[in-house]
Amino acid sequence: VEAGDGETLAHLLEPLHGADVADLLEQLDDGPRRRLIALWPHGIDGEILSELDESLREEVLAALPPEDVVEAVRELDTDDVVDLIENLEDASQAGVILDALEAVDRVAVEQALGFPEYSAGRLMQREVVIAPSFWTVGQAINHLRGADDLPEQFYHVILVDPRMRPVGYVTLGKILSSARETPLAEIEEESFRTFYATDPESEVAYAFNQYHLISAAVVDADDRLLGVITIDDAMAVLDEEAEEDILRLAGVDSEGSLSDRVLGTVRRRFPWLAVNLLTAILASVVISQFEGVITEIVALAVLMPIVASMGGNAGTQSLTVAVRALATRDLTGANVWRVIRREVLAGGINGVAFAVIMAVVGLLWFGSPMLGLVIAVAMVINLVVAGLAGVGIPVILQKIGVDPALASGAFVTTVTDVVGFFAFLGLAALWLL
Amino acid sequence: VEAGDGETLAHLLEPLHGADVADLLEQLDDGPRRRLIALWPHGIDGEILSELDESLREEVLAALPPEDVVEAVRELDTDDVVDLIENLEDASQAGVILDALEAVDRVAVEQALGFPEYSAGRLMQREVVIAPSFWTVGQAINHLRGADDLPEQFYHVILVDPRMRPVGYVTLGKILSSARETPLAEIEEESFRTFYATDPESEVAYAFNQYHLISAAVVDADDRLLGVITIDDAMAVLDEEAEEDILRLAGVDSEGSLSDRVLGTVRRRFPWLAVNLLTAILASVVISQFEGVITEIVALAVLMPIVASMGGNAGTQSLTVAVRALATRDLTGANVWRVIRREVLAGGINGVAFAVIMAVVGLLWFGSPMLGLVIAVAMVINLVVAGLAGVGIPVILQKIGVDPALASGAFVTTVTDVVGFFAFLGLAALWLL
Repeated sequence: VEAGDGETLAHLLEPLHGADVADLLEQLDDGPRRRLIALWPHGIDGEILSELDESLREEVLAALPPEDVVEAVRELDTDDVVDLIENLEDASQAGVILDALEAVDRVAVEQALGFPEYSAGRLMQREVVIAPSFWTVGQAINHLRGADDLPEQFYHVILVDPRMRPVGYVTLGKILSSARETPLAEIEEESFRTFYATDPESEVAYAFNQYHLISAAVVDADDRLLGVITIDDAMAVLDEEAEEDILRLAGVDSEGSLSDRVLGTVRRRFPWLAVNLLTAILASVVISQFEGVITEIVALAVLMPIVASMGGNAGTQSLTVAVRALATRDLTGANVWRVIRREVLAGGINGVAFAVIMAVVGLLWFGSPMLGLVIAVAMVINLVVAGLAGVGIPVILQKIGVDPALASGAFVTTVTDVVGFFAFLGLAALWLL
Repeated sequence: VEAGDGETLAHLLEPLHGADVADLLEQLDDGPRRRLIALWPHGIDGEILSELDESLREEVLAALPPEDVVEAVRELDTDDVVDLIENLEDASQAGVILDALEAVDRVAVEQALGFPEYSAGRLMQREVVIAPSFWTVGQAINHLRGADDLPEQFYHVILVDPRMRPVGYVTLGKILSSARETPLAEIEEESFRTFYATDPESEVAYAFNQYHLISAAVVDADDRLLGVITIDDAMAVLDEEAEEDILRLAGVDSEGSLSDRVLGTVRRRFPWLAVNLLTAILASVVISQFEGVITEIVALAVLMPIVASMGGNAGTQSLTVAVRALATRDLTGANVWRVIRREVLAGGINGVAFAVIMAVVGLLWFGSPMLGLVIAVAMVINLVVAGLAGVGIPVILQKIGVDPALASGAFVTTVTDVVGFFAFLGLAALWLL
């Protein structure tokens, strides 16, 4: 398609949704991507830019002629512009974008950038539809018909008092289905919620999910209306957080993406592997304490990874359940002991089941009942410890303010490796020599 | 609070949002929960029921007097009733709920239950606001003011042709801000999408997320309007899918929850641990081939878990990135080779880095340069293989129709364990003896 050049490209891409074009750009190799952008600069609009993966935005922005950037940026709501700017490493690009905005929008974006990262203030859009709380439905409709700068999409009208403090909201559905003379205050929704601009975005996303909000008002420290957060923004945050948890649990730094370069990937994977190396060496130190036993009974070297691996897997299961429950706030001080008890019991029961299996395997394979007993007891011990560490470690990390998704994995597998090798080899030294 | 009994409880719980009450019930132990329900049966309304974790719904439903169930169920939209019923194991409870509904709703719920599980038909609600496509804004407003059975929340009016086929939609914002004589067709949105009732819900959720939809129409095989799916339903699906991926990657069956009993937990964890046991035994078989070498050089037994563990971790990193990229459709046929190349290269580079570190560790710890070389080479081999298997295995599983989140972990760690032990011990046998 692009080898042939021409207008056919614009023809093909024009009808696509911005998100699909962004996906296409992400999936292309560097060369074809650059050629595509060069061929179709006017096509790259604000929507595509804001859908694009962060790691590619700078590249694409740099490749676009300035006048196209200006045009693209002007279409966007202020929250999307903030999103676009906040991750640019190149300050001059951010300057170009800010200059492209009209004065009002520029002030709004700069103010939003003044709020901490990952706060409600960064998430909100300034375009908001308000009405004095004493208006009637008819007045609101007349006002809306007369207004010429309404947001692209809006679902609620926020009621404000004379000091611009939000006091409630009315859904458009209610406005449309009520008589013109109905006061707005009479049809306002019960579930009104506001957030401070400095509230963390995870707080906001949780509330949207928990209370099925569609939009919510954002206020400053004096309770005055600053903007509004809509469900699609909250949805994006939830999505990102789940994604972050998944990747962090696997030891991948969350800023990564498929469009990354090899070296970026190497750098992002390295720290976790380094942590893992340290814990693996710790486990090896435990093993080295038992070199004498292993030389006598080489079967121990053959079987010992089984105990450690089962413990590691059981620990990861408990850990993942606990990390997610912490993230969704299902695991709280109220039920933490019940959950720990359950995980430890579950570990013990599964431990006994696998102990029996492994005792039989050990007996059949190496013909030694005592070896079977050793591996069985070590298995029970390690699975119980796995259940305990799998819940306990993330809960403790959360308490001391460390993200449990990021750090728990290394701790839990260290515990299960060390306990697994120590229990197995230690019992072997006691009972088999 | 509950020990004292009384109306204070109702007083305390009344102002809470249904979702919070449901969370409270989930966190209580069995005894207090039963006492709370007995004290406050009228308080458990439809909203609380639909927010409640599936594993508790049956218990709570069984504890409620039938008339409260009837009342609770009648408040709900049909999609929530479907959600409530579809997971009940006790058919008689489902019967009670169906009988509680008014005839129209009952037919709607039964029809929805006729669609396959996890389809758009199960997700949609029947309550939908429609207007003939030839109406004007004024006609629509008059109709809405006259209608008495409007859904609780609605954001769009769906335009239909005379055969009830949806042809477009108009946002309420546009209706409110346009003059009464404007034809609806003139202000309809561009991004109109419909789904068939049999479309999988993951398809629907993907489209909502990708195209920032707020609601979408659901049609039958003849393209006639059946209902509507709203963003909160799609959000719930996305949320569940990410959750499922997280848990499955850790080898936890996705139906689990914190409210589960111990035995349920044991049963759900067992299969994955059993799979892991088999793969661990396979790795042990590989080790047992080298018993002779280990007896000669016991340092091999000490160091071999390091190689396997580093490979397992690197493989899990690649795997997790690949599984998520498959789930979000960022990894496709178009870029799979590029991603594989990147992961293999990244594995190789990190492999070399850790090879150098381990060679030094091996040399310092055991004073043998050859041992350092063996572990270094084995490390590079295993990290390259980890990158290859981490992307290749989920892609292949997806191709043959197996959920990569569920099965990849076992395969990848088997590969890295076997390759790790084989490379390390094999090289040792060749070079050290």
